[in-house]
Amino acid sequence: MVGQEDEINFFVERLPNHLDKGEISMIISKLGDMHPADIAEIIRSVSDENAIVIIRLLNEEIRADVVAELEQEEREKLLEELPATEIAESVLTKMDSDDAADLLSELPPEKQSRVINALEDTDQAQDLLDLLTYDEDSAGGLMAKELIKVKENWSVKECEVELRKQAEEVDDVHTVYVVNEEDKLEGIISLKALILNSPDTQVKDISKTDIISIKASANSTEVSRIMDKYDLVVLPVVDENNYLVGRITIDDVVDVIVEEAEKDYQMLSGISEDVESSDNIWQLTRARFPWLLVGMVGGILGAWVVNFFEKDASPALLVFIPLIAAMGGNVGIQSSALIVQGIANQSLSGSILSKLFKELGVGIVNGLLCGILLFVVNILIGKSFEYSFAISISLLSVIIFAAVFGTWIPLFFNKIKIDPALATGPFITTANDIFGLFLYFYICKILIT
Amino acid sequence: MVGQEDEINFFVERLPNHLDKGEISMIISKLGDMHPADIAEIIRSVSDENAIVIIRLLNEEIRADVVAELEQEEREKLLEELPATEIAESVLTKMDSDDAADLLSELPPEKQSRVINALEDTDQAQDLLDLLTYDEDSAGGLMAKELIKVKENWSVKECEVELRKQAEEVDDVHTVYVVNEEDKLEGIISLKALILNSPDTQVKDISKTDIISIKASANSTEVSRIMDKYDLVVLPVVDENNYLVGRITIDDVVDVIVEEAEKDYQMLSGISEDVESSDNIWQLTRARFPWLLVGMVGGILGAWVVNFFEKDASPALLVFIPLIAAMGGNVGIQSSALIVQGIANQSLSGSILSKLFKELGVGIVNGLLCGILLFVVNILIGKSFEYSFAISISLLSVIIFAAVFGTWIPLFFNKIKIDPALATGPFITTANDIFGLFLYFYICKILIT
Repeated sequence: MVGQEDEINFFVERLPNHLDKGEISMIISKLGDMHPADIAEIIRSVSDENAIVIIRLLNEEIRADVVAELEQEEREKLLEELPATEIAESVLTKMDSDDAADLLSELPPEKQSRVINALEDTDQAQDLLDLLTYDEDSAGGLMAKELIKVKENWSVKECEVELRKQAEEVDDVHTVYVVNEEDKLEGIISLKALILNSPDTQVKDISKTDIISIKASANSTEVSRIMDKYDLVVLPVVDENNYLVGRITIDDVVDVIVEEAEKDYQMLSGISEDVESSDNIWQLTRARFPWLLVGMVGGILGAWVVNFFEKDASPALLVFIPLIAAMGGNVGIQSSALIVQGIANQSLSGSILSKLFKELGVGIVNGLLCGILLFVVNILIGKSFEYSFAISISLLSVIIFAAVFGTWIPLFFNKIKIDPALATGPFITTANDIFGLFLYFYICKILIT
Repeated sequence: MVGQEDEINFFVERLPNHLDKGEISMIISKLGDMHPADIAEIIRSVSDENAIVIIRLLNEEIRADVVAELEQEEREKLLEELPATEIAESVLTKMDSDDAADLLSELPPEKQSRVINALEDTDQAQDLLDLLTYDEDSAGGLMAKELIKVKENWSVKECEVELRKQAEEVDDVHTVYVVNEEDKLEGIISLKALILNSPDTQVKDISKTDIISIKASANSTEVSRIMDKYDLVVLPVVDENNYLVGRITIDDVVDVIVEEAEKDYQMLSGISEDVESSDNIWQLTRARFPWLLVGMVGGILGAWVVNFFEKDASPALLVFIPLIAAMGGNVGIQSSALIVQGIANQSLSGSILSKLFKELGVGIVNGLLCGILLFVVNILIGKSFEYSFAISISLLSVIIFAAVFGTWIPLFFNKIKIDPALATGPFITTANDIFGLFLYFYICKILIT
């Protein structure tokens, strides 16, 4: 059975006990009923030694699927324990080529070549070497080599014969690709069409030629954009000359989408490496400390700004330092996050200048609302008109500045090819803290005589 | 051709010109070559009147696909202009049932029933009424009714006959469902298996019975978790009695994943409604002002805290207010974001207490690093040991507090069934500003005699 979370937990709890008692055949039979994704979950929850035992107990077909389901880190740990020949013959040969290439790319270079040399099937070895040449974040890095292709001048009958031959290698047949005599991609034909048309129909007459494909060199964001936009389950990959070289399935793209979203989310929250709350204290600190350091440096610069104005400033001004810093930070992060999200989902349109003008508008509206509110509060608690007015004008300026600055920075980063997500989170709040405080004190100094 | 962004832009630019000149047949032929997703993009970029013209010029098959591709807001605007009978007969009948139900649910109730009444196919009307009963965020709300099902005691030959009959309604045949005499889901059979097996093979013998399905009442997060975990392209939906009621395809789930990620991202950045940077100033302000208000109230409370301690505090303490506020905010947002992400991708494990202890550890490590750094800076610029020590101890306390508080709040929200994402962004930074300032001044007051 699949998807029985309770059963998985139950199994994990009992496993050490079963192993102590040597109840191996019982474990094998339990594992035999499980989905590879569930077995991967079990491996994640048991000790490293027991994980190796489980991997060894699996039959080869399942083992490859389970290894493919593991997270990179877990996989690396497991593969260290397995000799190169075992990886080659009992894991790699049973995997789809995209997963196999991913696995290879994670191995140390020396072990990588030993594993490739240990492969008996030289075609497979060549396919994997090909795949390894592509950038990990490109269409070529995402694609698998397994696909079913037929010639455009064949009949449906001939296709079925070929399908029988090729289908053994390909687990999930989504689409059959149609190529011309030169092996260039001409179209696709659905299995439905093969079933529904008479055996002597020509492939050419029932194939769909107006299809979407992608170059192997395209980056993974472009792949996910196209598959999402056109609702594709599988996307053929071609080289520069339109030769069919592979295909990308949607499940791999879902992983890309989720990873991109998680990365942007962590950048926004000031976490610089891919960590999870289940990682250990040192991993978490390493991912978090760099941005805290940015905050520290910003705070020290902020202290310098306050120190500079403190002598002349009335103590009544100092109480609003936290408010000014918070509002600058909040507005800046809103603006930058919207831009970064717009860049990520490609919904940005118009020139940089037009976006800055719009943010100027948003800043003025929000700044006026907040400024008026603070003015009323100050008057109500008995502050002078001059003082209340100066503080609200300063707040308005800080908010407008933060909105425009928060918009401009990620656009500028994007333009000079730095990841705009770097411009969200602690970077923007820290920068706005410093500029905001300076603006605040400076404007108050001018307005309060 | 598809995916020709330049061509799309070119067409959009020329459109008003073509319309003025009455070059209708030319426009129709251009649109005929385009993918529905590209036409939707064009509609998004032209004026409302021209959008209606384009919709009316499309043939019915394409029109339904284009309408399904539009964003909800754009679709609502367009449908206002179309009479109920036109929506029913030329849009709804050509759509997959899941898209049709989404479209109906967006209409005002009165127009909704007029459209349903205008449907000639009463089976379709019944299907749509069924779909409308499900919660939008449930498996039932995501599923489509169109699917191909065969009985387990049929032969491959009989399946192919049935496939011919049913396949007209179903565009993308991913999988054929196998049901028993009572219509309960028993398994699936791939088109590949139908092609590769002889015509008199029994369906029962070649179907896969160990399959994953989901209850119609399950929520959409669960759907995306299962489809992602098991790498599924299509997931069958059953009712409480295991009767097959529909199927969910991966493209709809990608939309759910993207929406969830965007929502959490916006919450973290202090944006409370789903907006894009292309929305107008009022929409942007409405989405952004509520959290700024939270920041304002926090800032005013912070002013009160500073005011309370200001009389006794040395001016040298006041300069570090921005630093204390920033560090509390940064640490708190890191902690809360990790928890929210862990809840979202279901990677959290262990008790609340164990997570709080771990964050306590992370807080102590980060706090010590930052505290020592600040101590060194203070000593270097000639401050006294007592003063430098007190400030660093305060900073350490503020960081530890922010880490634990930032961890606890989203866990607590999740426990009492409030969206934990609310506990990220401005909420956590504002709360930490106030508590942090209080802690800072209080500890300095005790330590500096």
